[in-house]
Amino acid sequence: MNRYETIRFLLHERPETRTESAEAFAPANIALCKYWGKRDPELNLPATGSLSISLGHLGATTRVSLREGADEIFLNGEPLPDATPFHQRLVEFLNPFRPEADAGFRVDTHNNLPTAAGFATSAAGFAALVLALDRLMGWGLDARTLSILARMGSGSACRSLFHGFVEWHIGKREDGMDSYAEPLPETWPALRMATLTVSNAAKPVGSTEGMNRTRDTSVLYRAWPDKVAADLQALRTAIHTQDFELLGRAAESNAMSLHATMLGAWPPLCYWQPESLAAMHKVWALRAAGVPLYFTMDAGPNLKLLFLQEEQAMVCGHFPGADVIAPFDHA
Amino acid sequence: MNRYETIRFLLHERPETRTESAEAFAPANIALCKYWGKRDPELNLPATGSLSISLGHLGATTRVSLREGADEIFLNGEPLPDATPFHQRLVEFLNPFRPEADAGFRVDTHNNLPTAAGFATSAAGFAALVLALDRLMGWGLDARTLSILARMGSGSACRSLFHGFVEWHIGKREDGMDSYAEPLPETWPALRMATLTVSNAAKPVGSTEGMNRTRDTSVLYRAWPDKVAADLQALRTAIHTQDFELLGRAAESNAMSLHATMLGAWPPLCYWQPESLAAMHKVWALRAAGVPLYFTMDAGPNLKLLFLQEEQAMVCGHFPGADVIAPFDHA
Repeated sequence: MNRYETIRFLLHERPETRTESAEAFAPANIALCKYWGKRDPELNLPATGSLSISLGHLGATTRVSLREGADEIFLNGEPLPDATPFHQRLVEFLNPFRPEADAGFRVDTHNNLPTAAGFATSAAGFAALVLALDRLMGWGLDARTLSILARMGSGSACRSLFHGFVEWHIGKREDGMDSYAEPLPETWPALRMATLTVSNAAKPVGSTEGMNRTRDTSVLYRAWPDKVAADLQALRTAIHTQDFELLGRAAESNAMSLHATMLGAWPPLCYWQPESLAAMHKVWALRAAGVPLYFTMDAGPNLKLLFLQEEQAMVCGHFPGADVIAPFDHA
Repeated sequence: MNRYETIRFLLHERPETRTESAEAFAPANIALCKYWGKRDPELNLPATGSLSISLGHLGATTRVSLREGADEIFLNGEPLPDATPFHQRLVEFLNPFRPEADAGFRVDTHNNLPTAAGFATSAAGFAALVLALDRLMGWGLDARTLSILARMGSGSACRSLFHGFVEWHIGKREDGMDSYAEPLPETWPALRMATLTVSNAAKPVGSTEGMNRTRDTSVLYRAWPDKVAADLQALRTAIHTQDFELLGRAAESNAMSLHATMLGAWPPLCYWQPESLAAMHKVWALRAAGVPLYFTMDAGPNLKLLFLQEEQAMVCGHFPGADVIAPFDHA
């Protein structure tokens, strides 16, 4: 089954209680153990499992309604031009959700993420879109099905369906029905993340192309699944026992190894800027001086610092530009 | 056999025609495929093979003579204090070479490497020392034996016995008798290397400690032997066919992967400074613009640019601080 057929299968014979329009929110998420590499690009099935933390009230709010004619898509109040690749991607994703083949959607998405801090907004956006579609059509889909649907919009969107710590199971099935995310039961209200924006330039190489180049040319990537397995285990233990040092170490080591697999690709894939490295050395120097401070980084130049609430004043003193997030603040 | 016994075995029943004092030169070398990780720290047996290029007339000149009493060691004209770890290491290395147990050596080493460019001077120094000892004692050792002896002083010293391209064979034997370096027959007079000195601060973590930490904690290091095997093959082909692009690519990719294995260690081992990364991005931008320019890096912050003679003016224009070396200039 391709993606269209898989989504149609999941929505098959759902009872409907349509409303006029519906809205939903989904948080952004930052992986502590990264998703890097697909085993199936059509269904966004991952090469490994991953584990993230959602960013509380920071994320995307999406309103959808049915309309006659073509889809209309707005991002933060601005219409998204039809000719953009992202418009094409959204229209294609929406196709299997249409009640009739010629039905159109109006999609209106706002996100409240710190601007230009290098957040992947598509994860929260696709998760909120799937939630809003479910409410609009009154399907009453369960969390697992919603996660699978979101995954087919953008891989890491499957994790943005939930708050707190979330694990995306790699799954084994070819149709991806066992590759979905689930929230972990533990909370950790004192946990803090702070974004350190080094550069807001667009990525020179997008994530999917970066994943493909790494898989195809980086010999070190062969060891990546082993690294993920070790870090997932460490993170689960750290979260269960509230061991911050273990959490920080596993998250930072996972991110460093992620970037290492990219540096070993050809041409070398280096998302770091000199300022990224300066910030990394600063974190390492503070840690060597006894400060419990770690970081993670996605495929971009910005750092996300990890620390506990009690260190917040100290961290903000050392990194005046840091933007602090309380992931468990989503009342 | 430990190192002492192995060296005694190699020198056993050699005919002697001692002279008063003897001098020898050995070039420094830069690995295009790196030596990183030991399978035996006592004998300096490597975890993988490696391939280097010697730096022509840049290297170490060592004069040795016998004396009564303790060893006297001079580096660039300055006496090396007895209490330094390097003094201890040299005395210990010299022990099996003494004609009588209480004989002392005077060792006087000068190197002519660009100051503070991050060259490992110990490789050239140990190679020159072994050559000078052979001349002093008149043993007439063959090149393979000299390479094995130098290896036991400092691993990469086994490659500094020769000019041009040099391959160090990994070997299989526990006693290391098949782990030695040999020169490749090809020359490449147009090849150039330029050192780009970013920082001359002492390394925060020495090579042996760095190797050990990487081997013990970096999951990505598990893929390093596969990477070396691929790069060695590519380098041999590149040298044989004088394919500069293939040579540059294999050397740079090998160096990037070397640093990647270290970044994946815990704590992360990062020899790069922000200025290193800025220079790397500059090389990548020039290459994207069509300039055939590559680099390699050892366990330190400085780049060694690789290019052909015809690009020398261009490279010096873009990198005014670069110090150009002609590796095949050793008339």
